[in-house]
Amino acid sequence: MSGWLAIAGLGPGDEALITPEVSAALAQATDVLGYAPYVARVAAWAGLCLHGSDNREELDRARHGLRLAAQGRRAVIVSSGDPGVFAMAAAVFEVLEEDAGWAALEVRVLPGITAMLAAAAKAGAPLGHDFCAINLSDNLKPWAVIETRLRCAARGDFAMAFYNPRSRARPEGFGRALEVLREECNPGRLVIFARAVSTEDERIITVTLAEATPDMADMRTIVLVGNSQTRRAGRFVYTPRAVP
Amino acid sequence: MSGWLAIAGLGPGDEALITPEVSAALAQATDVLGYAPYVARVAAWAGLCLHGSDNREELDRARHGLRLAAQGRRAVIVSSGDPGVFAMAAAVFEVLEEDAGWAALEVRVLPGITAMLAAAAKAGAPLGHDFCAINLSDNLKPWAVIETRLRCAARGDFAMAFYNPRSRARPEGFGRALEVLREECNPGRLVIFARAVSTEDERIITVTLAEATPDMADMRTIVLVGNSQTRRAGRFVYTPRAVP
Repeated sequence: MSGWLAIAGLGPGDEALITPEVSAALAQATDVLGYAPYVARVAAWAGLCLHGSDNREELDRARHGLRLAAQGRRAVIVSSGDPGVFAMAAAVFEVLEEDAGWAALEVRVLPGITAMLAAAAKAGAPLGHDFCAINLSDNLKPWAVIETRLRCAARGDFAMAFYNPRSRARPEGFGRALEVLREECNPGRLVIFARAVSTEDERIITVTLAEATPDMADMRTIVLVGNSQTRRAGRFVYTPRAVP
Repeated sequence: MSGWLAIAGLGPGDEALITPEVSAALAQATDVLGYAPYVARVAAWAGLCLHGSDNREELDRARHGLRLAAQGRRAVIVSSGDPGVFAMAAAVFEVLEEDAGWAALEVRVLPGITAMLAAAAKAGAPLGHDFCAINLSDNLKPWAVIETRLRCAARGDFAMAFYNPRSRARPEGFGRALEVLREECNPGRLVIFARAVSTEDERIITVTLAEATPDMADMRTIVLVGNSQTRRAGRFVYTPRAVP
């Protein structure tokens, strides 16, 4: 009876974007842990233990998964998107050394389609050249760090993807991010608001930086910002592969 | 008889990392196009036309796919990893407006597991905080742009993922990148060399920036560089979610 822990990415929403590797892990699992709406995406069967928890309980959830594995259970912690991108994988490694017995456990991270790449695919290829991924939530870092990273990304002429642009607790952050971008970038810079990508509620709109307003993003939105070369081709938006 | 073009990501190598969406598109295809080693990864059957081509023929391949779709064929252009990350999606949109008849075609980008996220998952969670993806090839951009982006990424304390660190034609670029990083970052910064991730040849090693040498990367390697907080936990490497 040897237990294991997998930290698995469910992708952005559509079941057709869940990898066979993740589906196989879920089929072998005894326990599934995660933020309750993500756990609800897993098809349950008799005997599978579902452990849904709140959004802010990442470290407790990580410890719970490791304890289950140490007891010989086959535990899967599910994340939306990819578990290594602003999700549960880092939380597991943050607590891994708390218990010396956990070091020898089988722990695997199973990648998934992260929201920015699903959003980019629907829009065209806006991340087709060098890009940055930035979490705009200031839950775990000071706003000054976010602002510095926005300016560095703009000065390097990276395309950008913003996760968590606008949380209920901190609605003002995204407006401040737009102000920083307006100081650094041309007003014609393309900005894509991709909401609930690959679900029934999907909505993707492209505007210029001058037209972008904070209320265009909500908690289910990924924001993609082109670089200085990003342009439209018909209904698509893409960033050319070459820099002139 | 309505044709379409899909630009699809095959992931890093393991079939268990190909999404059901991509498998479904390949099952419906009449034609598969791509760099020959990627086309060779597609299971062929009688009647499926395989069009393998050379690495440098992206724009011709994109036009070929669009012409096939316009003829009513169901064409899939395959990329390794994700087609929107340093791959074929941008090339298709670059040529889409060359022929007015192509504007109305059904063109879809189907995301895949990109190499940096597959590599990060195997290593732990080194991209668990804000990060940049940079193509180190100077085929399509001047070296000065690459150097500026490396410095901006380092000054923003982003983790980094480098695609195409070392090509046969330009072996010296990665050594120059390491020199720039040594000017900007602490010598203890963690660097992960992830070669042939998810294949039989997979090899993942982690060293410090002081220990890193150009010959640790080849054409099949993705290089991940941690941020200033990235650390080891047992056999894993991760970047904490919080900035102190």
